[in-house]
Amino acid sequence: MSEFRYNMISREWVIIATERAKRPEDFKRKKDIPALPEHKAACPFCLCNEGDGKDETYRVGDEKSWKVRSIYNKFPALSPEQENVRNISGFYNSIKGFGVHEVIVENPRHNAVIATMGLAEVKDIIKTYRDRYSEIGSIKGVEAITIFKNHGPMAGSSQEHPHSQLVATPVVPPLTRNRFEQAARYFDVMGRCVFCEMVERELKEGVRIVLETEKFVSFVPYASALPFIVWILPKRHTASFGDIDEKEETDLAAHLQSVLIKLYKGLDNPDFNYTIRSTPIKEYNSDYFHWAINIVPRITQPAGFELGSGIFINSSLPEKCAEFLREIK
Amino acid sequence: MSEFRYNMISREWVIIATERAKRPEDFKRKKDIPALPEHKAACPFCLCNEGDGKDETYRVGDEKSWKVRSIYNKFPALSPEQENVRNISGFYNSIKGFGVHEVIVENPRHNAVIATMGLAEVKDIIKTYRDRYSEIGSIKGVEAITIFKNHGPMAGSSQEHPHSQLVATPVVPPLTRNRFEQAARYFDVMGRCVFCEMVERELKEGVRIVLETEKFVSFVPYASALPFIVWILPKRHTASFGDIDEKEETDLAAHLQSVLIKLYKGLDNPDFNYTIRSTPIKEYNSDYFHWAINIVPRITQPAGFELGSGIFINSSLPEKCAEFLREIK
Repeated sequence: MSEFRYNMISREWVIIATERAKRPEDFKRKKDIPALPEHKAACPFCLCNEGDGKDETYRVGDEKSWKVRSIYNKFPALSPEQENVRNISGFYNSIKGFGVHEVIVENPRHNAVIATMGLAEVKDIIKTYRDRYSEIGSIKGVEAITIFKNHGPMAGSSQEHPHSQLVATPVVPPLTRNRFEQAARYFDVMGRCVFCEMVERELKEGVRIVLETEKFVSFVPYASALPFIVWILPKRHTASFGDIDEKEETDLAAHLQSVLIKLYKGLDNPDFNYTIRSTPIKEYNSDYFHWAINIVPRITQPAGFELGSGIFINSSLPEKCAEFLREIK
Repeated sequence: MSEFRYNMISREWVIIATERAKRPEDFKRKKDIPALPEHKAACPFCLCNEGDGKDETYRVGDEKSWKVRSIYNKFPALSPEQENVRNISGFYNSIKGFGVHEVIVENPRHNAVIATMGLAEVKDIIKTYRDRYSEIGSIKGVEAITIFKNHGPMAGSSQEHPHSQLVATPVVPPLTRNRFEQAARYFDVMGRCVFCEMVERELKEGVRIVLETEKFVSFVPYASALPFIVWILPKRHTASFGDIDEKEETDLAAHLQSVLIKLYKGLDNPDFNYTIRSTPIKEYNSDYFHWAINIVPRITQPAGFELGSGIFINSSLPEKCAEFLREIK
């Protein structure tokens, strides 16, 4: 029979609906995706389409042969040129669209995906994330940075070319604020980081572990809202992604790639999002919070119940999903 | 330029991205949907496929010619036969899958949609919602009831036949709990219901109003997370949907249908969800909370930023969406 499971990080209930549970194989993509070319003349992120380069904020590689580039989003949701001004009328409150919105072009090849890149290429992406996080995190008025990746149309991506995005906001996002508050309360009672506790318990129980490497551990969360969600956490307590060290960067590149290979093989290149969930900028040294990468395959569609209640119905068993992924080498 | 807007009900920021804003017409469905037959032999909700009727919990109409039926979900996420037992281990907590999960078959015709039904047919649906809400709300252990509708595959519907669902849970859903808490805090400071205040302000400003009838008002919320979200609220302060009176039922049937006709015509029969957001069962008499219907067209796909931050980027202007809908007769 189904059960409610409690997510200790978000303090939200999820329904694990074993009555309607599917086997892990049933989530595999049904249709073939057409193969992409290595270069597409009309793609704004492809080689030779860099324009005058004025939109570029960062690159790995030299001018002739870049490996990763960060550029301003052509249609930014937020801009650093806006004043960071609040218009507080009492009931309807607004802030001008101050912030930063960059696109990180992960690779010159149009058809590259992290699962099939060389390891050095993945390391360059992680390094770019870290360097952009640090630089943009030092801008006055930036309260939080969200780094995320949309892969495929179901994940909201409108560009095929492999890319991630970074959005810096003048407010702490509600999801971050909620998790930070819950973690602070946990610390108040238990005297330790709830994420550290979870990592320890997951490693001990083992049933939801997907991968363990020297510096990172990944698992399907106990109260997973959707099938095949994977969290990757550093073993070392660190609140801010900006504090990742060089050894961790190297280990994370291999770890992230391994997890994405498992999803790529097991679910046949599913559409997915991942986000780096870091602490609010000013809480960079927090004992409560712990940064993580949250990978969400977009293989089911949340419906009215999820929208109306915030309770997700997950038609897969987290332990089965973890076992399935663990066994893919 | 874009702006952040604050949702006074959820206490969440939304980005209204006017830089990438589309015209209301641009959200119209691009492809034709194939017309459905009035009867489909293989559809479990069609006439003559009622089986032995043992799964039926409620009906409008007599045995030979039903108008609306409520039945147990064949693959229930929750069951009233489960014990309502919590398994609290301290860190990983669960509850057995106690609850109720019914399907409300809205009409015998396979191809009926609320926008094109007769008004009396819509009234029968509202009456069914109310009667099921009241009966199930009196079951011991039920803390909240979510009534919702999934229309179309983007809205998570797997059945074409017009239907809604009702899920009763042994916990107050996180989304309801959050809104209830925020409303209580608003009441603590301002001494009145935040929803009543919003209705009053919207009627006064007028720019986001979609429709006003004798008993209800609908508008696009100021901090709308997605294009064409519409909230329908009773003008009378009522916390629980179960307390809707007969005159309100009649007015709501016409009001809901008018709003759905506007979406049907304006966006070409979009996929959508709606949910009836009612108070926790035990707070039925609350001065803080106010029930509402929340309609969410599923015409854009939330991406990694939304998943990672909880901040939605809305590429439409709520005032423009409201104007567009208001003008469709």
